[in-house]
Amino acid sequence: MDELQKKGSLRLKWAYEHMPVMKEIDQRLRKERPFEGVKIGMALHTEAKTGILALTLAAGGAKVRLASCNPLSTDDSVVLALREEYSLEVHAKKGETQEEYYSNLNKVLDLKPDMIIDDGADVITMVHTSRRDAIKGVKGANEETTTGVVRLKAMAASNKLEFPVISVNDAQMKFLFDNRYGTGQSVFDGWMNSTNLVIAGKRLVVAGYGWCGKGIAMRAKGLGASVAVCETDPIKAIEARMDGFEVMRMIDAAKEADMIITATGCKDVVREEHLKVMKGGCIMGNAGHFDNEICKKDMERMAVTVSNVREYIDEFKMKDGRKLYLIAEGRLMNLAAGQGHPVEIMDTSFAAQALSMEYILNNSSKMENRVYDVPNSIDTDIANIKLRSLGIEIDSLTEEQKRYMNSWEEGT
Amino acid sequence: MDELQKKGSLRLKWAYEHMPVMKEIDQRLRKERPFEGVKIGMALHTEAKTGILALTLAAGGAKVRLASCNPLSTDDSVVLALREEYSLEVHAKKGETQEEYYSNLNKVLDLKPDMIIDDGADVITMVHTSRRDAIKGVKGANEETTTGVVRLKAMAASNKLEFPVISVNDAQMKFLFDNRYGTGQSVFDGWMNSTNLVIAGKRLVVAGYGWCGKGIAMRAKGLGASVAVCETDPIKAIEARMDGFEVMRMIDAAKEADMIITATGCKDVVREEHLKVMKGGCIMGNAGHFDNEICKKDMERMAVTVSNVREYIDEFKMKDGRKLYLIAEGRLMNLAAGQGHPVEIMDTSFAAQALSMEYILNNSSKMENRVYDVPNSIDTDIANIKLRSLGIEIDSLTEEQKRYMNSWEEGT
Amino acid sequence: MDELQKKGSLRLKWAYEHMPVMKEIDQRLRKERPFEGVKIGMALHTEAKTGILALTLAAGGAKVRLASCNPLSTDDSVVLALREEYSLEVHAKKGETQEEYYSNLNKVLDLKPDMIIDDGADVITMVHTSRRDAIKGVKGANEETTTGVVRLKAMAASNKLEFPVISVNDAQMKFLFDNRYGTGQSVFDGWMNSTNLVIAGKRLVVAGYGWCGKGIAMRAKGLGASVAVCETDPIKAIEARMDGFEVMRMIDAAKEADMIITATGCKDVVREEHLKVMKGGCIMGNAGHFDNEICKKDMERMAVTVSNVREYIDEFKMKDGRKLYLIAEGRLMNLAAGQGHPVEIMDTSFAAQALSMEYILNNSSKMENRVYDVPNSIDTDIANIKLRSLGIEIDSLTEEQKRYMNSWEEGT
Amino acid sequence: MDELQKKGSLRLKWAYEHMPVMKEIDQRLRKERPFEGVKIGMALHTEAKTGILALTLAAGGAKVRLASCNPLSTDDSVVLALREEYSLEVHAKKGETQEEYYSNLNKVLDLKPDMIIDDGADVITMVHTSRRDAIKGVKGANEETTTGVVRLKAMAASNKLEFPVISVNDAQMKFLFDNRYGTGQSVFDGWMNSTNLVIAGKRLVVAGYGWCGKGIAMRAKGLGASVAVCETDPIKAIEARMDGFEVMRMIDAAKEADMIITATGCKDVVREEHLKVMKGGCIMGNAGHFDNEICKKDMERMAVTVSNVREYIDEFKMKDGRKLYLIAEGRLMNLAAGQGHPVEIMDTSFAAQALSMEYILNNSSKMENRVYDVPNSIDTDIANIKLRSLGIEIDSLTEEQKRYMNSWEEGT
Repeated sequence: MDELQKKGSLRLKWAYEHMPVMKEIDQRLRKERPFEGVKIGMALHTEAKTGILALTLAAGGAKVRLASCNPLSTDDSVVLALREEYSLEVHAKKGETQEEYYSNLNKVLDLKPDMIIDDGADVITMVHTSRRDAIKGVKGANEETTTGVVRLKAMAASNKLEFPVISVNDAQMKFLFDNRYGTGQSVFDGWMNSTNLVIAGKRLVVAGYGWCGKGIAMRAKGLGASVAVCETDPIKAIEARMDGFEVMRMIDAAKEADMIITATGCKDVVREEHLKVMKGGCIMGNAGHFDNEICKKDMERMAVTVSNVREYIDEFKMKDGRKLYLIAEGRLMNLAAGQGHPVEIMDTSFAAQALSMEYILNNSSKMENRVYDVPNSIDTDIANIKLRSLGIEIDSLTEEQKRYMNSWEEGT
Repeated sequence: MDELQKKGSLRLKWAYEHMPVMKEIDQRLRKERPFEGVKIGMALHTEAKTGILALTLAAGGAKVRLASCNPLSTDDSVVLALREEYSLEVHAKKGETQEEYYSNLNKVLDLKPDMIIDDGADVITMVHTSRRDAIKGVKGANEETTTGVVRLKAMAASNKLEFPVISVNDAQMKFLFDNRYGTGQSVFDGWMNSTNLVIAGKRLVVAGYGWCGKGIAMRAKGLGASVAVCETDPIKAIEARMDGFEVMRMIDAAKEADMIITATGCKDVVREEHLKVMKGGCIMGNAGHFDNEICKKDMERMAVTVSNVREYIDEFKMKDGRKLYLIAEGRLMNLAAGQGHPVEIMDTSFAAQALSMEYILNNSSKMENRVYDVPNSIDTDIANIKLRSLGIEIDSLTEEQKRYMNSWEEGT
Repeated sequence: MDELQKKGSLRLKWAYEHMPVMKEIDQRLRKERPFEGVKIGMALHTEAKTGILALTLAAGGAKVRLASCNPLSTDDSVVLALREEYSLEVHAKKGETQEEYYSNLNKVLDLKPDMIIDDGADVITMVHTSRRDAIKGVKGANEETTTGVVRLKAMAASNKLEFPVISVNDAQMKFLFDNRYGTGQSVFDGWMNSTNLVIAGKRLVVAGYGWCGKGIAMRAKGLGASVAVCETDPIKAIEARMDGFEVMRMIDAAKEADMIITATGCKDVVREEHLKVMKGGCIMGNAGHFDNEICKKDMERMAVTVSNVREYIDEFKMKDGRKLYLIAEGRLMNLAAGQGHPVEIMDTSFAAQALSMEYILNNSSKMENRVYDVPNSIDTDIANIKLRSLGIEIDSLTEEQKRYMNSWEEGT
Repeated sequence: MDELQKKGSLRLKWAYEHMPVMKEIDQRLRKERPFEGVKIGMALHTEAKTGILALTLAAGGAKVRLASCNPLSTDDSVVLALREEYSLEVHAKKGETQEEYYSNLNKVLDLKPDMIIDDGADVITMVHTSRRDAIKGVKGANEETTTGVVRLKAMAASNKLEFPVISVNDAQMKFLFDNRYGTGQSVFDGWMNSTNLVIAGKRLVVAGYGWCGKGIAMRAKGLGASVAVCETDPIKAIEARMDGFEVMRMIDAAKEADMIITATGCKDVVREEHLKVMKGGCIMGNAGHFDNEICKKDMERMAVTVSNVREYIDEFKMKDGRKLYLIAEGRLMNLAAGQGHPVEIMDTSFAAQALSMEYILNNSSKMENRVYDVPNSIDTDIANIKLRSLGIEIDSLTEEQKRYMNSWEEGT
């Protein structure tokens, strides 16, 4: 077997071995085959954990076609193994051009999928605009990430959404873990892999104190950095302050930052005005879905030279001699420069994906064209399997306690 | 001036000095006098910060009558100062009997209040049951704590609630800070004050991983303890695990625990079965609203002797020789054995109280008899004043960014 | 029994109950009576844990006389109980004048002690200068704290030391725990007790990054503060930086500090130049041995008014309106405003005291007039008893491993 | 240029750019050429940071020959770049056989070096035994790591050491940072790279609580693991406990461990008895110098099958079905499966190497054949350059303070 394929094959098996929740779902779906004859189009970061989700849906009977939701996040070894060893249709490679990227998404839509799993909402957007030919059969979709959900809610608010979407991102078993502990760890996988620089003692600025930003800040502190947070929401700003972080405007933070990580879901968070005052040597990376959080256009315009100075790192030399560094072209540094979220984290996130797909399959006729939360029971089911896999037993309420929790008469 | 009164007087002034949000509200109310002629009945932990809330409402024109919402949480020095120096009507003392406690709440209701501020929902319950004579004039109420909100929602669910209640507990500027950082710190104030024992290296068990439990666990870790969490909710249980804590059933945790702190809002969380297996020397304390989380009845029944062995600590000697310790009779250890939440924490919590009272005053006619969230604008106002007081400036979205956040067309 | 005495009596019993190492030593000394007829003069912080050390030495046969090593650190309740219940000679009260302080130390020397336990080296200094009448019989002494050891080493370096002294401070079972975890916790006991202010989100400046400063910084971080460190040693400065703290000069730190805690062993660490630029509202406290780390003379000279504004807190109002606060007159805030180090911490520190006293008793004839380290075997003995009391079993080297650790031939 | 060489070339330049202390030393040596005509034989982990040390010594005039001190820790891209671009003599490749490993060390000794830089003491041992032909000209050596120092002290104790050795490992600017923050971070670089598994919520066992173990435990906690420590030293064991970690015997820890990392400097720390009771799925890695801390022989003997299941990970299937995993064949996982210590960490470690080499050059005639500490002035010089490079200013003692610190007369 080809070396690259072997690597991908091992990564897939290793992932499956460490995804106990998906394993249990896989084994049930394999028996019940609920997706028999169903076509599922997926656009996700195409690496080992995603492979397991795709294979699980396929094991449940689905015809799956997979593309990447990001030009830089693909693991080519896994793509090869999925194709050669599992005969899965995958259209993705690391380092796609914009054109290749969209061409691959189009191939997914060429399948005329019954259901869609999207990450960032590009496919769902396409099927509502440029690829309306494929919209008719779509019963519903899942969306994986905050950015996509924001877009879809905007779409729903303008009455443009033409099928129901489940916001898998908002499953508790997803955002509480994936966005926080997943991003928190994988950003530093990307950091270590691309820079080999120390984190302890560094001034790290996190833009955004949502679940992702919280995770990054928490781990940065845990790795010894001195952390500052930039926020636009006053309540989150105070929360960051009470968590022991400095809170300031980007224009002030940039002057002292050794590292800046963005995780806002907004664009141009770091832009010309910040680049102007930034300390020489500052290394920037992005953990948000799109590569527009750090304004590359401004960086390129302001730079005298741009050169690749280490794997995944470009140096932008400014007129005044300052060198500014950008990791992975400003794309998701945890996936583009690292191996993405830890396997066990994606286990519960993708369990929410698989079960939400099944939910849409069974309930789409009763659903409206809006963004739905993941049903509570799915969250609880995943949590219980996960606990079991960890060998953890928890307390349960006694009858007396249940009664008490629903009463109001008993006081001091 | 009497020594005790002087102490209380200084504590009140010190609190006011360190409550910048309340200061700003106080100065406005003092001018506008919106509560002119309004009677407000309050049952809160009667100590310095509460004193400032009462004085602020009074400065705004209200006739205020104050009792304690807990028999052990009163600061007698503050009561004296409020009465003598500020002529406020206060009915509270530290160490009330059950009878005195209810007698004091009754005095509050004797005022026939137009509005109520409650903490634990005892007064609101009374006015719906034993004191229906006082219910007629009540336009609305605020409830301060999780436990009270649970009771009131149960009441509303059974259609028993006869006026609107604002759940001040659920203001972001309250629960994110008060329940987490407030409880997190003040529990250890109570601990240090009552035990003078080290926290580092201790096995500390937290029952409940809500906001209070999260705060306690976080601070316990920050003080060097090895922390285990007991939960009945599987998702919170996994969250605790991912935060680095052991998660187990109380029956297993009790065997190894050096300290057990309850913060569940439920009763009998520690009971006979746990007391039987508990390690000798274990010290128990409660941070939940009621004193029934650790079952004192079971402790008393099982003990050979009960004796006070240090300020705030009772020793329960078991037949087999084990000594088990209980802090502050199982009542809120942060208030009964310590000085309660830090001043700045209560600043924002009580700002939410003051502004919610004003909201009810202006809007009660349009409100239904149910439990309301604090209006978002109140949360944001408090956050902005707070940030200003901290001298923190934050970013704001550019017009372009605002547009982007509301669009869905822009993709990869 | 008098209320105060009862409180002290309970505190003594509680301490003894939680000092397993001292308990074991106490039981042995009680049998062996090695100190029969030996006079021991002690100057230590006169509170419950110290009481247990004094009682243990007395149980071993010694005639003990005890004074305080600090005018503000005495627990009057314990003094009363020691005198009335245990007939121990104690000369100490909380809030001694300078005159009373030295008069009490003189009473200790009037005993003509055979051995001395000192904390800060005041008694040892006196016996070498003003009280040379008492020096003849002194066989040796123990010194408890960094500051005292620095003084004694300076004394030995000038050939002025006339008897051997054991630096109990430098026992591993002392400084690794007492200076770090002890100070780390008790400083915040003093803080919470005196201020009732929140620590999370505060800018806390620690002066000194020795073991005490490390402990304070670590706990401050654990309680949510944003910590800056001031140091004069470049290596310690980098260590602080790598631990995630800001490192800066006091003149820069003072401008932003919400709290400043000194733990340097040096004087005038905070002085006029810093007070001039300090942010209004800053609260200062000291954890070093002497009350000269924060220059009170400068504060008093610069202040327009000085007034007590809460228990243990003085406000210094500057001409420009800024209010600066000082905890416990700049004396050890953990003892003067709190209950001192946790009981279990003093258990091992005082075990080192007791065993070092015994060591001097048996070995003084062979010892030179210099500062000795605590013998290793004492450290190991204490550690082993401590581990046993915690129920912890550890690995031991196999014979093969022992051999390997002493060989050099075995390589890659 | 060859792709691999280009990668190595960039890694070297990136390292140099981020080693400000080495840069300053390099610039001085380049001018002064103190090593003109001196032959230096080096055995270190052959990757980018080591490359900078070798190039710096070469720039100072030395003829340098470099081999790897570990069969798995070489970065082939760097070797290529050093050879092709800088004409440095390097004898190393990733994945050497035992034979190749020693053959390369022999090539270093064929140079007949005047001075040696060693890591683990293999070269120094060889020159004292099998390669005595090369010992005559050796003026002195540096040793980099704890393990090597232990060996050399054993050698010196048996009067076998025939030239002076500086224990660079014991420079404060080395062990306080390299062993703690270096190992702390790079172990998790190796972990993430080889497993893509989550750290949060895992039960991680660290064997050894020296500086390396402390760093690993601290970072594991910072990344969300629940940490247990195994130690044979009772004082270190208590320290670990007070730092909030569980402390237990390996035989107990192995039963619950998800990950075990060894950092003891001893052999057979994990052996048959532990492997027997180990939880299935446990992943083991080593951060100590030699690959004998986890007993591979026992693992191989007990396993039914051994297979490579992911990059750097071997699976050992036990008879009872349990799968146990070993990272990087039990060799230094931070170097073999990751990129080794962060650049800035090696900056100060290697500064101590370069300056100690220079010290031996100038002082060897006055030195005895024993193990020396790095002179204090070297430590301080490095610290001061490092502080400057970080832009940190620190306080300095006033004259008055200096006087005070050396006096003993001033008391309470």
